Amino acid sequence: MTNSATAQRVSVIGLGAMGTALAQALLAGGHQVTVWNRTAARAEALVAEGAVLAATSAEAMAAADLVILCVLDDPAVREHIEPAAAQLRGRTVVNLTTTTPEQARSLGAWALANEVDLIDGGIMAVPSMIGGPAAFVLYSGATAAFDRFRAVLELFGRAEFVGADFGAAAMYDLAILGGMYSMFAGFQQGGKMVRTTGGTAAHLATLMAPFLQAMTTMFAQYAPGIDDPDNYVPEQSAEFTASALGTIDKAAAESGTHTELFGVLLRALPGI
Amino acid sequence: MTNSATAQRVSVIGLGAMGTALAQALLAGGHQVTVWNRTAARAEALVAEGAVLAATSAEAMAAADLVILCVLDDPAVREHIEPAAAQLRGRTVVNLTTTTPEQARSLGAWALANEVDLIDGGIMAVPSMIGGPAAFVLYSGATAAFDRFRAVLELFGRAEFVGADFGAAAMYDLAILGGMYSMFAGFQQGGKMVRTTGGTAAHLATLMAPFLQAMTTMFAQYAPGIDDPDNYVPEQSAEFTASALGTIDKAAAESGTHTELFGVLLRALPGI
Ligand SMILES: NC(=O)c1ccc[n+]([C@@H]2O[C@H](COP(=O)([O-])OP(=O)(O)OC[C@H]3O[C@@H](n4cnc5c(N)ncnc54)[C@H](OP(=O)(O)O)[C@@H]3O)[C@@H](O)[C@H]2O)c1
Ligand SMILES: NC(=O)c1ccc[n+]([C@@H]2O[C@H](COP(=O)([O-])OP(=O)(O)OC[C@H]3O[C@@H](n4cnc5c(N)ncnc54)[C@H](OP(=O)(O)O)[C@@H]3O)[C@@H](O)[C@H]2O)c1
Repeated sequence: MTNSATAQRVSVIGLGAMGTALAQALLAGGHQVTVWNRTAARAEALVAEGAVLAATSAEAMAAADLVILCVLDDPAVREHIEPAAAQLRGRTVVNLTTTTPEQARSLGAWALANEVDLIDGGIMAVPSMIGGPAAFVLYSGATAAFDRFRAVLELFGRAEFVGADFGAAAMYDLAILGGMYSMFAGFQQGGKMVRTTGGTAAHLATLMAPFLQAMTTMFAQYAPGIDDPDNYVPEQSAEFTASALGTIDKAAAESGTHTELFGVLLRALPGI
Repeated sequence: MTNSATAQRVSVIGLGAMGTALAQALLAGGHQVTVWNRTAARAEALVAEGAVLAATSAEAMAAADLVILCVLDDPAVREHIEPAAAQLRGRTVVNLTTTTPEQARSLGAWALANEVDLIDGGIMAVPSMIGGPAAFVLYSGATAAFDRFRAVLELFGRAEFVGADFGAAAMYDLAILGGMYSMFAGFQQGGKMVRTTGGTAAHLATLMAPFLQAMTTMFAQYAPGIDDPDNYVPEQSAEFTASALGTIDKAAAESGTHTELFGVLLRALPGI
């Protein structure tokens, strides 16, 4: 994969499980990779693979055109980025640390004031998936910088730019995870329900997984109801959905495993 | 598909969208099909395809070894089945009308008292899917009768027997639909969130659908936590999930589109 014509100088700050996977993908892509981690010992394997270990985070930042941050949380990002404003001026920083949209926007304001091109990112993958076909990463913020480094960022997984708002990537990230946890909560509730009839959650899993896979195709059909509600005619009336949810809620109550879940879905109507 | 050696006498009571699709699948399978509908005109197309129209629901029941009921709801089932106890004695009735588990159990008790083999069913398909590869139907109740008529029932879609409890099929049915509506609610909430950053629900749909499809494989991993909680060690701690859900809830609040959804998921911990 080495291609010195397009090789870039890239630094990775933070070598936890995720940062290490990112650095490995960059090395595999033939880039000049500088790394730094608070606990230096975690860099050893990467150095053996060709990365250069910097003595401080500021030194790592100064050594690259593209700086990738992947530390624990927003305070850890701030701790290293704020004192390094001079080193970062004119460079592109991609923050792949998980933050809220407001934290991303606040960092974006700092970056604008300090002439840093900031791209905020949200990784939709676990470390073992980085560089594989199922991984994708959401990006938002500095659009021209994203276009410039897109080929590098594609090494991590499909790169999905979701807008110039610094908070957009975090919002999409958390919206997708919110959908995932909602689905998991529905499975948990369903598993408890079927157990009261002598069934098992294991059996339910084999039935619910393919059914919900097929039903994800409905998202695209429901989207106009959110994007353009005034011109949307739902295929199923809110009354139909309310009646179905009422029956589901009743079955949950009959099973004695009732939670608030379906009541909340009912109150969210006609949204679903 | 006609095979007179195994052709059975089957009646379908109720020729709405779903009952019509069921009768068509039985005709295509080569069975002797008798039909009845409250509004007789809806039977015309089926009669042209080879079905026999009965004058009353009781006459339709007396004409078959296997009686399929697919009317609006439980009261409509009761209205036709209770006066026909004599005609039904010794026969197998498959009720594919949507009911709650308790309604199915109550009908099961009636069937036992009247020496009728009752199978309750839940159709996991829309009418156009009947007989196709993606359709499946949940069944529970009279086990020996199910085994006897399994080949006929497979004409509707994959036949999935979930237990002798008359209420089991309805419970699985409503558990699966509850999972679906929970997932839809998560998408709706997410769509509202991303719109506040200049995104669209349409874009979110293209990203969330494949991600959640992949994540349905987690159901099988979470099932032991429901089936055998005492011996279950979760891959992700409840603290990790609580922290992730807290961030999602915060992002929803920041977006100003906050609903109760994520708060309820948080309160359901450590279940998810
Ligand atoms: N793992 C995943 O599946 C996944 C998926 C998507 C997003 N993410 C996000 O990626 C980021 C990193 O996750 P991870 O899985 O790599 O976590 P991890 O394995 O726990 O690593 C955490 C990293 O943060 C560093 N760190 C913590 N506090 C620091 C500070 N004050 N200053 C400098 N470095 C600090 C740690 O350094 P030490 O080695 O010195 O402790 C370590 O390198 C998180 O924001 C996470 O939400 C992870
Ligand atoms: N359609 C689906 O996608 C679907 C999926 C899964 C399960 N189901 C279930 O299948 C059942 C039928 O649904 P469908 O879509 O066929 O509904 P439908 O098109 O509205 O038809 C309703 C049927 O019920 C009959 N009916 C209503 N009240 C009656 C009464 N008191 N006595 C006799 N017949 C009566 C109607 O007769 P008339 O023609 O005289 O009005 C008609 O045949 C429902 O329980 C539904 O929940 C449907």
